Amino acid sequence: MAEQSYDMIVIGAGPGGYVCAIRGAQLGLRVAIVEREHMGGICLNWGCIPAKALLRTSEIYHLMHRAGDFGLAVEGASFDFDRVIDRSRKVAKQLVSGVEHLVKKHKVSVLRGEGRLAGKGRVAVKTDKGEQTVEAPHIVLATGARARELPGLEADGARVWTYKHALKPPHMPKKLLVIGSGAIGVEFASFYHTMGAQATVVEVQDRILPVEDEEISAFARKAFEKQGMEIRTSATVKKLDRGKDRVTAHIEQDGKTQTQDFDTVISAVGIVGNTEELGLEEAGVTVERGQVKVDPMCRTGVQGLYAIGDIAGAPWLAHKASHEGVMVAELIAGGDPHPVTPDQIAGCTYCHPQVASVGLTEAQAKDRGHEVKVGRFPFIGNGKAIALGEPEGLVKTIFDATTGELLGAHMIGAEVTELIQGYVVGRTLETTEAELMQAVFPHPTLSEMMHESVLAAYGRALHY
Amino acid sequence: MAEQSYDMIVIGAGPGGYVCAIRGAQLGLRVAIVEREHMGGICLNWGCIPAKALLRTSEIYHLMHRAGDFGLAVEGASFDFDRVIDRSRKVAKQLVSGVEHLVKKHKVSVLRGEGRLAGKGRVAVKTDKGEQTVEAPHIVLATGARARELPGLEADGARVWTYKHALKPPHMPKKLLVIGSGAIGVEFASFYHTMGAQATVVEVQDRILPVEDEEISAFARKAFEKQGMEIRTSATVKKLDRGKDRVTAHIEQDGKTQTQDFDTVISAVGIVGNTEELGLEEAGVTVERGQVKVDPMCRTGVQGLYAIGDIAGAPWLAHKASHEGVMVAELIAGGDPHPVTPDQIAGCTYCHPQVASVGLTEAQAKDRGHEVKVGRFPFIGNGKAIALGEPEGLVKTIFDATTGELLGAHMIGAEVTELIQGYVVGRTLETTEAELMQAVFPHPTLSEMMHESVLAAYGRALHY
Repeated sequence: MAEQSYDMIVIGAGPGGYVCAIRGAQLGLRVAIVEREHMGGICLNWGCIPAKALLRTSEIYHLMHRAGDFGLAVEGASFDFDRVIDRSRKVAKQLVSGVEHLVKKHKVSVLRGEGRLAGKGRVAVKTDKGEQTVEAPHIVLATGARARELPGLEADGARVWTYKHALKPPHMPKKLLVIGSGAIGVEFASFYHTMGAQATVVEVQDRILPVEDEEISAFARKAFEKQGMEIRTSATVKKLDRGKDRVTAHIEQDGKTQTQDFDTVISAVGIVGNTEELGLEEAGVTVERGQVKVDPMCRTGVQGLYAIGDIAGAPWLAHKASHEGVMVAELIAGGDPHPVTPDQIAGCTYCHPQVASVGLTEAQAKDRGHEVKVGRFPFIGNGKAIALGEPEGLVKTIFDATTGELLGAHMIGAEVTELIQGYVVGRTLETTEAELMQAVFPHPTLSEMMHESVLAAYGRALHY
Repeated sequence: MAEQSYDMIVIGAGPGGYVCAIRGAQLGLRVAIVEREHMGGICLNWGCIPAKALLRTSEIYHLMHRAGDFGLAVEGASFDFDRVIDRSRKVAKQLVSGVEHLVKKHKVSVLRGEGRLAGKGRVAVKTDKGEQTVEAPHIVLATGARARELPGLEADGARVWTYKHALKPPHMPKKLLVIGSGAIGVEFASFYHTMGAQATVVEVQDRILPVEDEEISAFARKAFEKQGMEIRTSATVKKLDRGKDRVTAHIEQDGKTQTQDFDTVISAVGIVGNTEELGLEEAGVTVERGQVKVDPMCRTGVQGLYAIGDIAGAPWLAHKASHEGVMVAELIAGGDPHPVTPDQIAGCTYCHPQVASVGLTEAQAKDRGHEVKVGRFPFIGNGKAIALGEPEGLVKTIFDATTGELLGAHMIGAEVTELIQGYVVGRTLETTEAELMQAVFPHPTLSEMMHESVLAAYGRALHY
């Protein structure tokens, strides 16, 4: 017999899991959350949050070096690497405490240990001290993901790192190889390069940030190269020879393999869902390519069993996970929530310049058979961008030529991670170009470019 | 007989005027624009744009002093005041050239000189070299506004300044009095205080930023006082005694008048429309309290005569003017545009912390008979705000309790001038709380607070 019963048990306390638990509690459910490591999961502890803290430091460090551009002067801008890292750990810790407080406030039971499905409606929680079994008619899997390891490129924490090592590194790199140019790869490349490392990014595909619109990829590449980064696309790291204070990478490009020396390597070749040792197979849950198969409402097909966030598939983003968490909690509580669709989910990359997008790329829109109208507006045409000293960037919008539906928006430049939400709101409200043209974006803001890009798609740009 | 005829003549080349001219040209109209001083008007030359350039410098200067918070160190952070100002002038100049280029590209005729209505469909343009008369069936008045001068507080450019002097100042103030705490007043107070002046703000009303929601005013006051600014509300500057390098202000507060010495005074007591010497009376145009009376489509009531922007009334904002410019151009070209309503117009103040809002304040909503639901979310509860080191701020949203309509949104804190557009888009699409709750604001961003504030209005906040 189970020692304790609940209305809902959530396994995993990342953003998907803890939000699901809190929302469930708000709706009157008795909720338990099972977590083996730390509240907040990877995102708060080893992901988004500490990474953004580091990137804030590098942003300010960069501005210090540009002081003269603004009529300012500094002598001796420097940093204390330990303190930089220490700050980011403190930021993470503060937010984790916040989540612990919220979960407690909502009277969610926290079960510390490793959760595993143990028969219909049952979860076994294994701790150092033994195992307890708890039960609930609804169980939500939210165990997240971890860094993918490629054979020969495995992280060792000394000279070869995953994102986790890169967030609490043993040293400041001087010559850094980043393998993979997705969001995680370019964020670290950007941070360490700005702090003074010489960064090389190797990407197996023919462009960096390969999920972004091709024009944005090209723009980002140019910007990074201008900063002195080395970008090698259509290239593969075949092997790493690890020395005491040096790693020799064998990089294949254009059919030739060359070696290049680095003191540090960050492997950022994607993530893989934490689907192991959960008892999924015995429970009858389908796992395909490392992710749990679910329907649009995050149901696994097994009665009472749901999966949300990273283990339920792309995009592997905290806000996708947390909205799925809310949706599933409402479903369990008897509500009728809307499904979370990937097209609604914006992606943000906090490199310098920043990248943000939502919806379809131009290529995707055409692939899906849309005749498109495309608008573009460059930062150099925007007053606030000039005033900020940030004239490098682009806003691109894609509309269906027939219906005027905003199919996708793609941005690169200062603060675009904060701007993209305007298009998200628009898309949620099924906007067309007409309403976006009518919306009065305030002056002087970067957001005016969001308006101009729409106007441009219809040959009506005012400032370009 | 007129020397030249057009389809439309625009008098004044500020944001309202030049945008109106460009939009008219896009629609196939033959357009002339009459400007006595500089393309771009006050906004580009002596307003928004150079002010934002200065505020960017003070933002970075402030960050330098906080370097230690981020694990960074600087020695000898300083500024060259002339270069700070010079940069802002260059930014303005660059944008003015941009507008000149755009106007030319759209084949708008530029008539340099003072424009005056000269009978039905006729404008006299006076230059140093004489006067020419041009004609058009449609004439748009877009002459903007200037600083209001109060008797005894008139600017002299030496120790007592308007915004114009404050943007190209003869010296860096040490002890600064700012009269008036609207957007212009607090922006200058913020800039000069951050650069090292001791600022005192005197406001006749009982709170600063009096057009903002009361909670935002209170929050701003607290933040400014924490920075060491002196804020005196319900206070009036009765008189200024001007010395060679000192101004003694007689300030009345609580029925008592005290004197206080300053080396510089900025008068920011509002603006007044440029309605003089335009021949308005002879043309039959009604001017009330210094502004031209217009209908919602900016028609003056005199056939073929329109007024847009500052001379047509509040809010005195460039984006209001430019949208009115587009609207009037479309109307003249035979289109059927939507009117621009004040409730759609967001206001942004670029002080530190920033302030932005759109729609009704809580008090206004109640005055209009709405039963309201109010949501609040503090920056301290947001991960990105913590990571940025910007935990000071608040997002407040006001909904109609019956319909769920978003009546108003009010924000103070980092980057809110860029965030507010999401609510503007929502309001343009007549959003209710339901769509805003469904919108997936990306993580980790400040914009997540826009979501949480909506959730909070309905007792559903996840992170507070």
